Amino acid sequence: KIDGARLWDSLMDMAKIGPGVAGGNNRQTLTDEDGEGRALFQRWCEDAGCTMGLDQMGNMFARREGTDPDALPVYIGSHLDTQPTGGKYDGVLGVLSGLEVIRTLNDLNIKTKHPIVATNFTNEEGTRYAPAMLSSGVFAGIHTQDWAYAREDAEGKLFGDELKRIGWCGEEEVGARKMHAFFELHIEQGPILEAEKKDIGVVTHGQGLSWTQVTITGKDSHTGSTPMPMRKNAGLGMAKVLKLVDEIAWSHAPHAVGAAGHIDVYPNSRNVIPGKVVFTIDFRSPELDVIEDMEQRLATGAKVICDEMGLEIELEKVGGFDPVAFDENCVSAVRDAANRLGYSHMDLISGAGHDACWINRVAPTAMIMCPCVDGLSHNEAEEISPEWAEAGTNVLFHAVLETAEV
Amino acid sequence: KIDGARLWDSLMDMAKIGPGVAGGNNRQTLTDEDGEGRALFQRWCEDAGCTMGLDQMGNMFARREGTDPDALPVYIGSHLDTQPTGGKYDGVLGVLSGLEVIRTLNDLNIKTKHPIVATNFTNEEGTRYAPAMLSSGVFAGIHTQDWAYAREDAEGKLFGDELKRIGWCGEEEVGARKMHAFFELHIEQGPILEAEKKDIGVVTHGQGLSWTQVTITGKDSHTGSTPMPMRKNAGLGMAKVLKLVDEIAWSHAPHAVGAAGHIDVYPNSRNVIPGKVVFTIDFRSPELDVIEDMEQRLATGAKVICDEMGLEIELEKVGGFDPVAFDENCVSAVRDAANRLGYSHMDLISGAGHDACWINRVAPTAMIMCPCVDGLSHNEAEEISPEWAEAGTNVLFHAVLETAEV
Ligand SMILES: NC(=O)NCCC(=O)O
Ligand SMILES: NC(=O)NCCC(=O)O
Repeated sequence: KIDGARLWDSLMDMAKIGPGVAGGNNRQTLTDEDGEGRALFQRWCEDAGCTMGLDQMGNMFARREGTDPDALPVYIGSHLDTQPTGGKYDGVLGVLSGLEVIRTLNDLNIKTKHPIVATNFTNEEGTRYAPAMLSSGVFAGIHTQDWAYAREDAEGKLFGDELKRIGWCGEEEVGARKMHAFFELHIEQGPILEAEKKDIGVVTHGQGLSWTQVTITGKDSHTGSTPMPMRKNAGLGMAKVLKLVDEIAWSHAPHAVGAAGHIDVYPNSRNVIPGKVVFTIDFRSPELDVIEDMEQRLATGAKVICDEMGLEIELEKVGGFDPVAFDENCVSAVRDAANRLGYSHMDLISGAGHDACWINRVAPTAMIMCPCVDGLSHNEAEEISPEWAEAGTNVLFHAVLETAEV
Repeated sequence: KIDGARLWDSLMDMAKIGPGVAGGNNRQTLTDEDGEGRALFQRWCEDAGCTMGLDQMGNMFARREGTDPDALPVYIGSHLDTQPTGGKYDGVLGVLSGLEVIRTLNDLNIKTKHPIVATNFTNEEGTRYAPAMLSSGVFAGIHTQDWAYAREDAEGKLFGDELKRIGWCGEEEVGARKMHAFFELHIEQGPILEAEKKDIGVVTHGQGLSWTQVTITGKDSHTGSTPMPMRKNAGLGMAKVLKLVDEIAWSHAPHAVGAAGHIDVYPNSRNVIPGKVVFTIDFRSPELDVIEDMEQRLATGAKVICDEMGLEIELEKVGGFDPVAFDENCVSAVRDAANRLGYSHMDLISGAGHDACWINRVAPTAMIMCPCVDGLSHNEAEEISPEWAEAGTNVLFHAVLETAEV
């Protein structure tokens, strides 16, 4: 079994870097705080005897050798970056549980045939740089590195420049590593495990996602002296589109969700009718045809709304992945481990996207989930219990042990 | 008659300070650019032989002496601050036409019984610091100076601190000056004069305004893994309130307008359901009971929307003034001047708020309007012709001459 207290201490130590304003974290990707978090993780890994690797997307790899020089490693990992008002566990648990597996193997002096590599993927959250899971996506060959380097944040700073600025751009070619298997432990970020009183979610599938950035252009003009019939109010156009998004998602519920988290209004002055609004719609479903239907209805419906109001509209897809089915053997390894350890468990579809969703394209992959309080995530109040973290990491440990062969 | 070419040159010279990104201006109140604009205006006034006054709200007064030492001055003025994406004439024309009146009096060697004072009021626009017409409001005793000093911009910087920082906080007590009369020339910022092919708007009334800042609080959570029924989407609540605002305004059209120009979403991340949205509703009407009805229906309707969605809502009135009737004698002076000069004219209700609306509380006041292209204002593309500016300033000159007595 792993050392739950040590794991928890590491989680709490990492949470000191890039503290939020309400008990959580603001350690967004490629900020100085991200750099600090990486340095701490690297120090811990080196203390655990690992050899570090760093690729050109800033993905970090901490390797514990195996006994067979020809055997491909078993990878464990997730991400250390957070939302601007994020929790202490989203992603971090997946990285530090990888380290805890290595520490436990050291403690117990266990030698595995396959090497074990604990991994931190860059920019999973997708807040500062869309899309989410950017670097695992490049690793899996979904995006090119040049395209990723050219992503811009809200201030116009490029991903590639910021990666170099914080000093975490490596030499290693991205995706050159081959994996025997990949495991990611993550908090559920939803309410199901807690409601069903299960310790462990055995993640069989992940729902797909579609991010559409909408730009509505009207005409900025005076809120007082512009008569109602002469207005081209881009903000009002957005309001109608947001209602439409909600209706579309509900029409497929419970097999779909939809909302806009990001909204920028220009020039954003109390007495200027908004001339431009840029916002991003997030649609998800475990069913590909549902996602396609939602995208289609958004495009058609938003166009009708804007035409009627004399507004221009532009839609750009800024992120997306298809629903995922994880590797049957890896999923079985997780389920078997939960059974062996006597944890209550259930099969689950992941509501969020994860690095594992992309890595699944290039290696046999599975995910383990643990509950989180009230299903709350992407909120500084995100919380889990030490027992949940320990149970998830024990299942991870045993699934990895089985896969890496003792 | 005034010198139209000189007036136009001054308008174009002022527009070089704080240029916008699309041909207009970004010279927001109490920025360094505002300070530069003030310095240029002061230099011009001193060159025209004026004595400068500066009060504790940064209001500037350029005085040309009269012949009667006991006569109160006739004031002319408006504001030099602009919207973040504002035009070259909104406010500026009213200040520089005051200077042009003084320059013309000098050229023609005319002595008036009453002194003439060209005025620049601080923070008319209300973008950086709500409410609009802040300093003319303090001058007229509507707000206290302490309250005004404590206004905060989006970065938390206080009005009082910024006024001192740019070096334009005077010693003079605000509102201590008594006025014989006040005249403000302004572009219409609406489409009526151009549509009716009139050179001059004789402003008899100003419509009233109500600004309500709305804060809707939900719960930020994950856009992917939070089931639809568990969401508390503050952004969706806002969307429904924006639709309601539009319906309320239309129900009173053409006697009312309504919109939201300012919207801030938190944490504004693509994959976080907005936990908080702050936005400001701008309702206007020439009829007080219509404004009150709109406020009432907003408060009731928005509460119903939020209750149904499990959202919290808070409404705060952050700006407002009642409809205004300008002084009959001053209005007649404007109408007579337009007649004498042979300009086509019509009576008009101002759609926007102006410093004159507050000064009307403490001195006989009137406004003159000139057309603007497509009725467009609060937009960098705001445009007028030199002929319109000249006609407006000639009417101002003659109305002032009559009031100040030669
Ligand atoms: N797990 C997680 O929150 N990932 C961010 C990408 C997403 O929005 O699903
Ligand atoms: N004239 C003008 O645009 N003033 C700003 C205050 C308002 O919004 O009416």
